[in-house]
Amino acid sequence: MKSPNQQMVLTFALQSDGVPTYALTYKGRPVIKTSKLGLELKNAPALTSGFTVADSKQTTFDETWQPVWGETKSIRNHYNELTVNLQQAATSRTVILHFRVFDDGLGFRYEFPLQPKLDYFVVKEEKSQFALAGDHKAFWLPGDYDTQEYSTVTSNLSEIRSKMKAATTPNASQTPFSPTGVQTPLMLKSKDGLYINIHEAALVDYSCMHLELDDKNMVLESHLTPDAAGNKGELQTPCVSPWRTIIVSDKAADILQSKLVLNLNEPSKIKDTSWIKPVKYVGVWWEMITGKSTWSYTNQENIKLDALDYSKVKPNGTHGATNANVKRYIDFAAQHGFDAVLVEGWNTGWEDWFGKHKDYVFDFVTPYPDFDVQELNRYAQSKGVRIIMHHETSGSVRNYERHLDTAFQFMNKYGYTAVKTGYVGDIVPLGHHHYDQWVNNHYQYVLEKAAEHKIMVNGHEAVRPTGLARTYPNLIGNEAARGTEYESFGGNNADHTTILPFTRLIGGPMDYTPGIFQTKVSAYNPQNNSFVHTTLARQLALYVTMYSPLQMAADLPETYEKHLDAFQFIKDVAVDWDATEVLEAEPGDYITYARKAKGKSSWFVGSTNDENGRTSKINLSFLEPGKKYVATIYADAKDAHYEKNPQAYAIRKQSVTSKTKLTQYCAPGGGYAISIVEAAAK
Amino acid sequence: MKSPNQQMVLTFALQSDGVPTYALTYKGRPVIKTSKLGLELKNAPALTSGFTVADSKQTTFDETWQPVWGETKSIRNHYNELTVNLQQAATSRTVILHFRVFDDGLGFRYEFPLQPKLDYFVVKEEKSQFALAGDHKAFWLPGDYDTQEYSTVTSNLSEIRSKMKAATTPNASQTPFSPTGVQTPLMLKSKDGLYINIHEAALVDYSCMHLELDDKNMVLESHLTPDAAGNKGELQTPCVSPWRTIIVSDKAADILQSKLVLNLNEPSKIKDTSWIKPVKYVGVWWEMITGKSTWSYTNQENIKLDALDYSKVKPNGTHGATNANVKRYIDFAAQHGFDAVLVEGWNTGWEDWFGKHKDYVFDFVTPYPDFDVQELNRYAQSKGVRIIMHHETSGSVRNYERHLDTAFQFMNKYGYTAVKTGYVGDIVPLGHHHYDQWVNNHYQYVLEKAAEHKIMVNGHEAVRPTGLARTYPNLIGNEAARGTEYESFGGNNADHTTILPFTRLIGGPMDYTPGIFQTKVSAYNPQNNSFVHTTLARQLALYVTMYSPLQMAADLPETYEKHLDAFQFIKDVAVDWDATEVLEAEPGDYITYARKAKGKSSWFVGSTNDENGRTSKINLSFLEPGKKYVATIYADAKDAHYEKNPQAYAIRKQSVTSKTKLTQYCAPGGGYAISIVEAAAK
Repeated sequence: MKSPNQQMVLTFALQSDGVPTYALTYKGRPVIKTSKLGLELKNAPALTSGFTVADSKQTTFDETWQPVWGETKSIRNHYNELTVNLQQAATSRTVILHFRVFDDGLGFRYEFPLQPKLDYFVVKEEKSQFALAGDHKAFWLPGDYDTQEYSTVTSNLSEIRSKMKAATTPNASQTPFSPTGVQTPLMLKSKDGLYINIHEAALVDYSCMHLELDDKNMVLESHLTPDAAGNKGELQTPCVSPWRTIIVSDKAADILQSKLVLNLNEPSKIKDTSWIKPVKYVGVWWEMITGKSTWSYTNQENIKLDALDYSKVKPNGTHGATNANVKRYIDFAAQHGFDAVLVEGWNTGWEDWFGKHKDYVFDFVTPYPDFDVQELNRYAQSKGVRIIMHHETSGSVRNYERHLDTAFQFMNKYGYTAVKTGYVGDIVPLGHHHYDQWVNNHYQYVLEKAAEHKIMVNGHEAVRPTGLARTYPNLIGNEAARGTEYESFGGNNADHTTILPFTRLIGGPMDYTPGIFQTKVSAYNPQNNSFVHTTLARQLALYVTMYSPLQMAADLPETYEKHLDAFQFIKDVAVDWDATEVLEAEPGDYITYARKAKGKSSWFVGSTNDENGRTSKINLSFLEPGKKYVATIYADAKDAHYEKNPQAYAIRKQSVTSKTKLTQYCAPGGGYAISIVEAAAK
Repeated sequence: MKSPNQQMVLTFALQSDGVPTYALTYKGRPVIKTSKLGLELKNAPALTSGFTVADSKQTTFDETWQPVWGETKSIRNHYNELTVNLQQAATSRTVILHFRVFDDGLGFRYEFPLQPKLDYFVVKEEKSQFALAGDHKAFWLPGDYDTQEYSTVTSNLSEIRSKMKAATTPNASQTPFSPTGVQTPLMLKSKDGLYINIHEAALVDYSCMHLELDDKNMVLESHLTPDAAGNKGELQTPCVSPWRTIIVSDKAADILQSKLVLNLNEPSKIKDTSWIKPVKYVGVWWEMITGKSTWSYTNQENIKLDALDYSKVKPNGTHGATNANVKRYIDFAAQHGFDAVLVEGWNTGWEDWFGKHKDYVFDFVTPYPDFDVQELNRYAQSKGVRIIMHHETSGSVRNYERHLDTAFQFMNKYGYTAVKTGYVGDIVPLGHHHYDQWVNNHYQYVLEKAAEHKIMVNGHEAVRPTGLARTYPNLIGNEAARGTEYESFGGNNADHTTILPFTRLIGGPMDYTPGIFQTKVSAYNPQNNSFVHTTLARQLALYVTMYSPLQMAADLPETYEKHLDAFQFIKDVAVDWDATEVLEAEPGDYITYARKAKGKSSWFVGSTNDENGRTSKINLSFLEPGKKYVATIYADAKDAHYEKNPQAYAIRKQSVTSKTKLTQYCAPGGGYAISIVEAAAK
């Protein structure tokens, strides 16, 4: 079966032993060689062989839909679908395979219809193969059941085994599950220039998939996350697996533009989405991340939440979320047109919250004595600003669920409209993993409960996104990767943001929290000698290159006040878009995006590159022909360098039209940002 | 240290290697020989040796308290306490041992105070020994992390290993954890006539204790229930273990009269207890247990709760909880003065609820189409009767917690005041056990939430009670043993009810559901050839011998209507008491109780015996001297026999006073019941 444009060709075949296989070519070049499909079950015969094809059919689908928020105003969902009804005669069981071939790739899933001989079953392992055509270059993270907060390693597939150890930093939370296991989205580049991305879509009531590499044959195979009992899925028919996705192109830019993962998710289940709005925010956060202030109100150790009377203990004097400090952020947000202020460390329990597998760790409704929840919300709302709620769970999922209704009612009462959730540390109860089915179902439960309360969710340390925001557009953000916080924990690689849009962002937006202008962390905390591995100009570019409907200006108000010229870009940049163009892209090297602000004529350009300097050459043909615009270019100064001179930037304005070509130097670890405003509109 | 009456003597000593030990004698006879104490921890040095005594003190406590409901109007709590502060110098850790010596036994616990070197810790195993003085006769159940629904085995301790296999019936839910592991409460009798009971009190935020027997040395040692990660306790200081209890006497009756376990629990945490009331009830239940009718409304298999539209499927015609049938029970309850009607199978999901480890198995608020929740509650309340709610969880504890608030609000809305909970099958998520700390905390959560909603709880398949009803008197019942339902599943041993008061009931009341008059189950369901292993007269006796503030008349209305003379006893018998006397007792052979109805002058006597017939001789000296009473005696007929002629009973009346002596024949598997009403009151 071919894609609508005929360039992507899927071949489905049964081997002589009844093993279902598929293969995929793109423009006649092999992408996935013949690869087996199936599942092994616990205490039941495998669903891997002995099949015959009882029936198959091909259909075509073409629709255009409008996302509630997104990179483009509308999205075309156009594919040919092959449905293969497989019968395993020896066991009288049926499995249906669905293949959707898009112009930009393939999605396939298993359907398990309701049937007498397959009602409840336990997945021992899913055996979906992705047989690659060569020893591709891979942008990979070690496979891990609990965290994606790794630096990406760039290497050939054959080098994964030898580089696995060095890919892991001495951090108890990082636990690779095998010498050649990797996470998804996995970005690959073949020697002959094919770009291939493997991930999954619509991860609901199933275990999260990783990939296990057979590095002799270059065959990747699905590896699901086990639960506390070692099971990899406890399913009841009728049910489906998530879609396994393969995005392919000979142009890197096409990978970034693909909407395949979103398209494989169901339309929104939230009918009234009027309360879901992109958010640009500041927050009482970076000052704690750097160690300038603390989440906790006291220096008590080993507390029990119910037993400590906060009115009787001595404050530590370093608490960040105080009334005065929060008001300072609210004033700053209001003055500069931000929608919201995130406040972390507002609630009791932060003295003793981490790493102890504590069950009752937070109650999500009790503020510290120096945080007046009613007054601060009143104050914020009087200035047109909302406070963003923070629910750190410390991984104790039962405790969060027990408090969820009350916590969301509390948010509704005080006017909070968004929550940042956190799952730092091991999942409690122990034995579960951040990405297993039981815990994935927890995130889903929170998301649906939040929707009932008209609350937007930004989930940190939760399972990586798989396009589910199409179905639940209140999922406005996720972390699920190494974010800006690591710039204070030793730093991110200079090429980090040239890779993430090809990997992590394929599943959905990331709350990357850019905007750090004070690149030396020691300026806030003399004990911390980390530094931000980007230039200041690139921090601006990230608002365009790291797509998210939720964007933070993460640095401190007092720092922004020293750089109001550069800060202007963050104030101006949109967080929702009518159109997106990829002007330049090569994973690991550079990415340049242009995006048109939602409902406006202005455009914003952002460019990020790796540790080597480069010259970016773009043309502005995306602008409306015949119109005149003024571009404000926020660029690295000539002597800028992410290590040696990160804060050297230069801002210039120039008139531009759709015929303009721009040449812009980017420093090592640098980049640039441009706002382009219609001249008449000035 | 000695007990208040000097007969119980505790000796505490440190071995030369700093191992703490204790020993216990009663009237100069050894009960517990020198036995070690301590705990092994995970990833930390053991708390078993290397201790010195930093401090110790002795105190005396004497109070009398009034239970909200109970066997007696008031309870004396009188003990001498030895507190030993142990220091483990090598690790700078402190453990405090508390020993409370009562006239009827010993309780001891570990206290772990807040301290720098012991904050969070994981228990690998508790190593509390109970070194016995001989190869005692034991009344034991195989040690199991998930069920106590075993028949009791009576054997010498040395025979446990050889009898373990036969003690287990082919039932997947029965999984003994070792060849010599047994459950508590464990009842023992020494060759020289000492009665010893070992159990625990105040099991809160801790794993349930079993006992592992060293059958060479006759030393029992604590064996805690592991959680899904294999941990046996995840603790944070300050905290305490439950009390380990040893009740001792040379009179069996004293074991039954002991309030030691209750006394070791904290006073009620519920301030207003006016809504907690003993309950005598009937129910739509035995007809499903026997197979006469069904819990489910349809014969659909493999359903998903949200996907099945019950209005569109064919009813099976065997559903028990129909409007008409429930009204029939309500009418019967009202006519005969019962407080309540339990209705099981009222809510959707029963078609597919068991054994599949289903997560979303019930929602606890959606009635079947033929159960009109509003009308039936209105109807019941108009007749002075309440419907008892039923929440079967199928072991899916997260699902229950997710629905708990809504389910309790639903109960409040319709006027339900009590709930029977159930945890049939494996705990979901898999890997957890019915008796592990995480799941124990679930039962506690339900109990406390229920108290907030003024709901009484009767927990089936939950952890065995440990006197916690003193602290939470809304816990009016538990199952946690083989109840009357097994009379329909093959039968209970004829001596079953001569043992349970010495074992299971030491921890708290049991919802044993007696009152089965139709002893042949085939009368209700021709396919079921089980029979009740007692005479009808003994079914009456159980209302007195199986103490509970919650008593069911479990048989069907149409059966009671055929035996209204015998049924009169069930109508008359009290469910709350001012005083209790044990007139005769020998575990495994017979028990005869007399109890004085709460706030009244009437007394009720019940006697149960084993498979051998016997003649009970009692004197009624417990009656108020000088007063005249009329006794109605419900006895086995001369030819009664639990197998051959169970329904043969005889009822006679006679005048009695405190000087009366009664001699009463009891059939094999039989017993008798007496109501004694003040003559003047007639």
